[in-house]
This record gives sequence, C-alpha cells and structure tokens, in this order.
Amino acid sequence: MSTTSDNKTAARLPRGLVDRTADDIRAMDEMTSKIRQTYELYGFEPVETPIIEYTDALGKFLPDQDRPNEGVFSFQDDDEQWLSLRYDLTAPLARYVAENYERLPKPYRSFRAGWVFRNEKPGPGRFRQFMQFDADTVGAPSVSADAEMCMMMADTLEALGIARGDYVIRVNNRKVLDGAMEAARLAGDTLAGVRLNALRALDKFDKFGLEGVSLLLGPGRRDESGDFTKGCALEGDQIAILLSILGDQPLHSLADTIAASVRGVEGIEELKTIEELVRSAGYGEDRIKIDTSVVRGLEYYTGPVFEAELLFPVTNEDGQVVRFGSVGGGGRYDGLVGRFLKEDVPATGFSIGVSRLASALKTLGKLGAKRTRGPVVVLVMDKSAIASYQTMVAELRAAGIRAEMYLGSSGMKAQMKYADRRDAPLAIIEGSNEREAGEVQIKDLDLGKEMSKEIADNETWRASRPAQVTVKRADLVAEVSRMLAAMAEG
Amino acid sequence: MSTTSDNKTAARLPRGLVDRTADDIRAMDEMTSKIRQTYELYGFEPVETPIIEYTDALGKFLPDQDRPNEGVFSFQDDDEQWLSLRYDLTAPLARYVAENYERLPKPYRSFRAGWVFRNEKPGPGRFRQFMQFDADTVGAPSVSADAEMCMMMADTLEALGIARGDYVIRVNNRKVLDGAMEAARLAGDTLAGVRLNALRALDKFDKFGLEGVSLLLGPGRRDESGDFTKGCALEGDQIAILLSILGDQPLHSLADTIAASVRGVEGIEELKTIEELVRSAGYGEDRIKIDTSVVRGLEYYTGPVFEAELLFPVTNEDGQVVRFGSVGGGGRYDGLVGRFLKEDVPATGFSIGVSRLASALKTLGKLGAKRTRGPVVVLVMDKSAIASYQTMVAELRAAGIRAEMYLGSSGMKAQMKYADRRDAPLAIIEGSNEREAGEVQIKDLDLGKEMSKEIADNETWRASRPAQVTVKRADLVAEVSRMLAAMAEG
Repeated sequence: MSTTSDNKTAARLPRGLVDRTADDIRAMDEMTSKIRQTYELYGFEPVETPIIEYTDALGKFLPDQDRPNEGVFSFQDDDEQWLSLRYDLTAPLARYVAENYERLPKPYRSFRAGWVFRNEKPGPGRFRQFMQFDADTVGAPSVSADAEMCMMMADTLEALGIARGDYVIRVNNRKVLDGAMEAARLAGDTLAGVRLNALRALDKFDKFGLEGVSLLLGPGRRDESGDFTKGCALEGDQIAILLSILGDQPLHSLADTIAASVRGVEGIEELKTIEELVRSAGYGEDRIKIDTSVVRGLEYYTGPVFEAELLFPVTNEDGQVVRFGSVGGGGRYDGLVGRFLKEDVPATGFSIGVSRLASALKTLGKLGAKRTRGPVVVLVMDKSAIASYQTMVAELRAAGIRAEMYLGSSGMKAQMKYADRRDAPLAIIEGSNEREAGEVQIKDLDLGKEMSKEIADNETWRASRPAQVTVKRADLVAEVSRMLAAMAEG
Repeated sequence: MSTTSDNKTAARLPRGLVDRTADDIRAMDEMTSKIRQTYELYGFEPVETPIIEYTDALGKFLPDQDRPNEGVFSFQDDDEQWLSLRYDLTAPLARYVAENYERLPKPYRSFRAGWVFRNEKPGPGRFRQFMQFDADTVGAPSVSADAEMCMMMADTLEALGIARGDYVIRVNNRKVLDGAMEAARLAGDTLAGVRLNALRALDKFDKFGLEGVSLLLGPGRRDESGDFTKGCALEGDQIAILLSILGDQPLHSLADTIAASVRGVEGIEELKTIEELVRSAGYGEDRIKIDTSVVRGLEYYTGPVFEAELLFPVTNEDGQVVRFGSVGGGGRYDGLVGRFLKEDVPATGFSIGVSRLASALKTLGKLGAKRTRGPVVVLVMDKSAIASYQTMVAELRAAGIRAEMYLGSSGMKAQMKYADRRDAPLAIIEGSNEREAGEVQIKDLDLGKEMSKEIADNETWRASRPAQVTVKRADLVAEVSRMLAAMAEG
C-alpha cells in the first residue's frame, strides 16, 4: 500500500488514466450527441455491451498459453474463468451479434460509445482507458455497406462543424495490399515476417515519401540524425510493385501491376464499386478518396479499410507543422462474428477515437466554446437566517434559475471568492439590515470585476458599490431573471 | 478456453452482466438527462473519474493481507501495483477531491453517473456491473448540506414524474444509532460483533415489525416455516432502548431515552435542524421524513443518512404485494477525503441506483413510453440500380428523415420482413418499371399491417395493394415527409 509519511494513503490517479472535468464532459457530450444524431439518421440503432467479457470471447489468449494477452487487463472470477476489460468495441459486438443472432434483424446496423482499456505503457496521447464511438453493419456482404460507412463518416465530420476540405475519408482494400504482396512474390506463411516489415515500410509513405519507402524496402535508410533503419532487402522488381500502390495512382494502372493476383484484382474491383457508389451519391474526391497507400488494419480486416483524416495543420511536440491526422478508421471484418457461429457473417464498421476528435474540434474552436455559467450564489450573512436563504434558492430554482446557497463555514470575503471561482453571474446578499427592510442586494459579479479593474483604490470601490442593486425581497426572482437575461444578451 | 463442439468459441456474456438494447439505452438516457438537469439547477457540476483506481485509494485492502478485498475486481499493472475496478463512485471522488484539493472551489459540489463493479455472486437483481448516479458536497460541515441533498432528491424524483405521495426521503443519523447502542450499554470495540447483529435486527423492522425485532434482539425468532434465527440475547432494558428508535417516535421522546449519550443527543439535534430547514423550504413530511428506524450505511457514514423509498405497490417474486422500496441513499462521510489529507474534510452525498430507478419508472409508465420509429427503408429491387437507391436515402437524410437502403442480399419478401422488424414506417420501392416511368412506390407499413389483418386472402391483398402510393421520383422527399407527418398525427 502506498502511504505518505504520516500514514495517509496517497491520493493519486494511476498513469494513463484521466479525470474528466465539467468542461471536458460537456464538450464530449455535445460531440457524442451530434455523432449519435447522424448515426440515427442513417438508420443505426444504439446497443451497448458491458465493459467485462470472457477473455476468450475477445480472442485475446496468446497462442499456446493459458494466460491472456498482456495488452488486456484480465482477472479470474470465482469460477476461475478468465475475464478481461474490453480493448475495443468490435470484439464485444461480434460476441453480442453471435449470441443474439436469431432474433436480430439482418443486416444489423448498430452504434455505441464506450470506454475501452489497454494494458500498455501509457505515454503522451496514449491512455489506458479511452472512449471509442463505433458504428457497425453486420450481415451485409456487399461493398454498399462499406461505401455507406464512408459517407456516414464524411457526414458526421461535417455535422461536427469540420469544413469540407479540412477532412478526407481515405479508402483502401486489404485485398489490394495482399495482392501487391502476392505479385511481389511475398505470399505464403513463411514470408509473414517479411510482409509485416514491408507493410511497416509502406506505412511510412506519409513521413518519408516514395524514396524513403523505397530505401526501407531495399537496402535500408539512414535518417538525418545518422540513425540507420535496416531494410527489407527486397529486389528491384519487388520494390517497384509495392511502390506502385503508393501515391495518387489511378486504379486501372494498379490493376495492370497486380493483375497476377486474383485477390488483388478483386480488391481493385471493390474499390471501383465503392468509388462509383459514393460519387453517384454526390460525395466528391474532396470528401471520400480511394487511396491505395492507406495501410491499416493488420489485425482482422478482410476487405475495404477506411481512415478519417483531418487535413488542417497543427504544430506537433517537435515544433513541426503537420496535418492533424487520423481521428478514426475501420473496415470490413468478415471473420469476427463467424468465430462464434457455424456460418460466416460478413461485417463492416467504423470507430472514432473520441478524445482525439474532441481535441481536433477544440483546436478548430468547434467544441466547448459555449460558456456554462455557474449558479447564482446566495451568501450566508447570518447563520440563524439559513432557512430564509434556503427559501430564496428554492424560489430561484422553481423559476428554472440555477442557484445555490453557500454551504461552507467561511466569512463574506471567502464567499465572494467562492462565487467568483464558481463563475457565478450574480450573488445575493441579505444581511440583518436588508431583512428588516424587506430587501435583498443583488451583485452583478461580471460588472463588479470589470469595474474593480478600473478602480484601483479599494476604499473608492467599496464606497461606490458598483454593479449592485437593492430590490424588494418579493421581487428577487423577477429581478434576477431580468439581470441574467441582460447578461446573456450582453 | 471455452469452445463449442466444432472448435468455435462460445458466444456468451458472463453472469451478472447485461447487454443494453436500444430501448434500454434510450430510456436510461432520458432518465439520466432529467436527473442531470435537476442537479445542474442546484448548482452542481459534472466531474468523472476513471473506472480503474489504485486499490489502496479505494480502501479495499483487507486488513493484514497483501491481496485486495474479494468483493472488488483487481489486477496488477506492469509495475506490480494493485489496481481495482471501482465498486462505487464515492471512494474515487474522495481520491479526486484530495488530489485536486487546492484548486477546487470549496465547498465542492459535483455529480456524476458511472459504471461500478462488484466481484460477487450475481443473483436476481444483483449485477456485477451497474450504474450509479451520485451527487456530493465536499467541504461543507453543516447539516444544511445534508438537508439540501434530501430536498434535491425529492425534486429529482418529482422531475422524473413520480407523484408526491409515491415516494419519501427518509432521514436518520448514524449518531442516533450509535447513541442508542451506547445507551443500551453496547459501546466499545469488544462489542462490535453484537452491535452489528443488533443493527441487522433493527434493519428487519420493515419486514417483521416491533415484535419480530424484539425477538431478534432477545431470545431469537422462529419464522412461519419453522426456521429459527438466533437472537442477540440482550436484556429487557437494552431491547427497550433499541426499540425506542423504531417506528414513528417523536424526536423529543427519543432524546429522553438516549439522553445518556452525548453523541446520540448531538444526532437528534442535527435531525431537528434538518427538519426545520426542509420544512421552512416548503418540503412537508410527505416528501422528507425524519425516521430513526432507517438503518443504513454501516460502512463509512458518520452523521445524517438518507434513503429514497418508493411507496407504490408492486408484486414481488413470491407473489406478495410490497412497496417498491429503496432506489437510492446516502449520507455524511466526514472521514473519506481525510484518509488522503492532513486535515479532515467533511462531505455528504447521495447515490441513485440507476437500473433500479429505471425499473420503477417503467412500472409507473414514466419511462420509455415514447416509441422510436425505425428508418424509412429503401428496398433494393435491382442490384444494378444501387446508386439510384443510395441517392434516395441521401436525399431523405438531407431532409432530416431517418432512412437507409437495404444492405443485405435477400429478395423482396425478406426485405419487407426486415423493414417490419426495424419498425420502419415506410418502404420505398423502385423497380425497373417505376424507374422507366420516373416514379417510386411508397408503402405505408402500419396501414399495410392493419389492412392485411382484415384481408385474409393473399390474392385479394396483392390485388388491392393496400396502403401504397405511387409518386413522381422528384416528389419522393415531399411525399415521404407528408406521410410521416400524417402518421405522427394519427
């Protein structure tokens, strides 16, 4: 147990976990509510699974081991069965669909937001608990479902206020990557390691360009600092085939290059169909772009893969100006539901990284710009009159006005400071003099702050009593309403 | 690993966990949104902590053991530190407040909804993951804060549509229970076991009445089936003192009985103050009731305790008509934040059991009564025309109409069945004939169902083609809007 020197427990959050403050929560709620509206419009229904699943249902047992994969948080229940915290929302959805297969409409279109967990070393921007927002269509074999995912993502980003031109949904097909590997004589189980390294090299296209990737596929690459990265040692014609999928290649030229691979040609045909579908629905290349350089989904994707990329520039930790980058992605995973059933079940989905998208929207000023004011604070001037103050807040609340009575035990100065920290618009004061006169004072705290900046002399400030009105007790609610309305307009 | 006979993984949810369907989610969102509105009106701010905490921060290490309490799900991270899933929202809030103590306004008023976890044998109505909705005021020593919690809970239940008279917030004080124990010569560490048994007996007042509790405190009680429960073997005067706190006792008579206990008398004074405060704010005994028979919070409560009870009758599993019962509770926990700090920090809070309250609201018809219709479904009559169907749904969505194109690979009959299962209001049909004529058919599925009930003969039904209109393709959106509006009215 971790205790401080005087035997107190240390109050500390484990690394990679975050507390969410009022502003964070309100911004996230605003964002997820807009995403949900778009998904509902597309005919998707909410469904949510619990945070805990049987480890085997998540497919997270390491081969030949009886302990779960290290990347997931796992524990045994009283029956000694392994349970894990979900690490994404796709594996639990596959379990849900398989368990309820008979009674679900097919295709089954659903969405959900939820926390997922990774048992990994946390780092900057890498958390051990974070939120994903997923949509999935299960039971739809055709690429129409994939095309729809892409269109829905484009619409979602625009519904969130991201301007056309500031984002693009890039679409590739896992089969094209497989086909290129095949055409480059890299098929077969024994070459899996080489393929993985080659894919990693291709994934560096954004960063290093064609020449850099070419070096990584071939002899290796030395960066500016002199560090050397070992290459894949492929031959020239192999490298040429793999490079052909990078950059802005027309699909037909690509089809020639990998014509030798049936799977690759199939992938290209599917990409063509997706392109036709989205174009005819009015989505131009500025919104949804076929881009065979997208390397994504090394795990369970079986067909089309998508990536939502934000294009506007931000400055990264190293001071470089870069594109904001990916805020989500997805693809077709025809094998996942079938793990549980006797039949194969086609499926496609898209997952948004909620925190990352929220951070993008904040950068653009599209989120959390609205200020939520604190409550009207009724000060406690006289402890014997608490019932009177309590009645005031009850009246204000009954009129729909956010209000509270100060509940601490401090004096007036601390109470005013409290009202300030709460971003209270108004403070209500009823001392014994006011009570005898049947009056209350209402302080406009915004105006008070403005004026006190100008009036340096404290004495003068007190004497002038700025931004403060005295009204009949019976007029409290009406006057507070009037002042709040005026503040909202100003 | 659990696999079925053909080496497939079994798709099953662990016991005590539930999937949430669209209706559940929508009902819960509607409910939590109303709770949130009330809490905001009272000046509380949202704050959320993560689902994982250090085990010691939750106070869940068993004494003299280096493994966490069995009731919590625990695991070790890569630094070999014990982490646990939170079992309530209060312990993590205490950690949060302690960790951020300097920068928080004090008193600190906050609320949060969140999942909590119990590593226990699940049973009917007992889950291993469930949602709580908490509000807490930290840093307010006076019982004004406790009184406010009670008023806020009463207002919350009414905001949710529960009629006055169908609920009551019952208020007791842990100090009164302690005082009664003291007066009954049951103070001191060595008698902790006896006190616990006596409290359990007192907690049976609702079920067994004064006589039953008296037997449990004394010689023991035999129930109707002949089963015998051992008694606490207290003497007559001890039993009399403990019984005096049960039932509808006026506080002053109680004060006489336990006058010997300073702590007991303090508790009674606090209850009197709470009563004065809530009455003067206009909350009658039908809403907030002082009731010293409330036995609650054996764990960390230090002062006032509250219980929100729903009074309307329901039939339980045994066929008996009973009150619905508790949907939440709370109290003062002055010790929890202080565990982490050098100073004591007073705090009070209230926790709503979200699932249980939702079930109560459903019983009352106050939740989920609103039907959310499925999307308008555009059927796929002709696979070569998918772009045309896709354009239709894009147009409908652009007009704010929930719509989707059928994404499966089945024929028309299955598509109509799909539309029915989705609770679609309308189906759109464009076959090649319609397309040539520049027209679309719109089927009113509700009217179709009504009429097909009346027309037994399938041939007749087909011939009459009920509830179906044919409109110009250009008029699709306008006609769908018109028909949906008419359906909403009807």
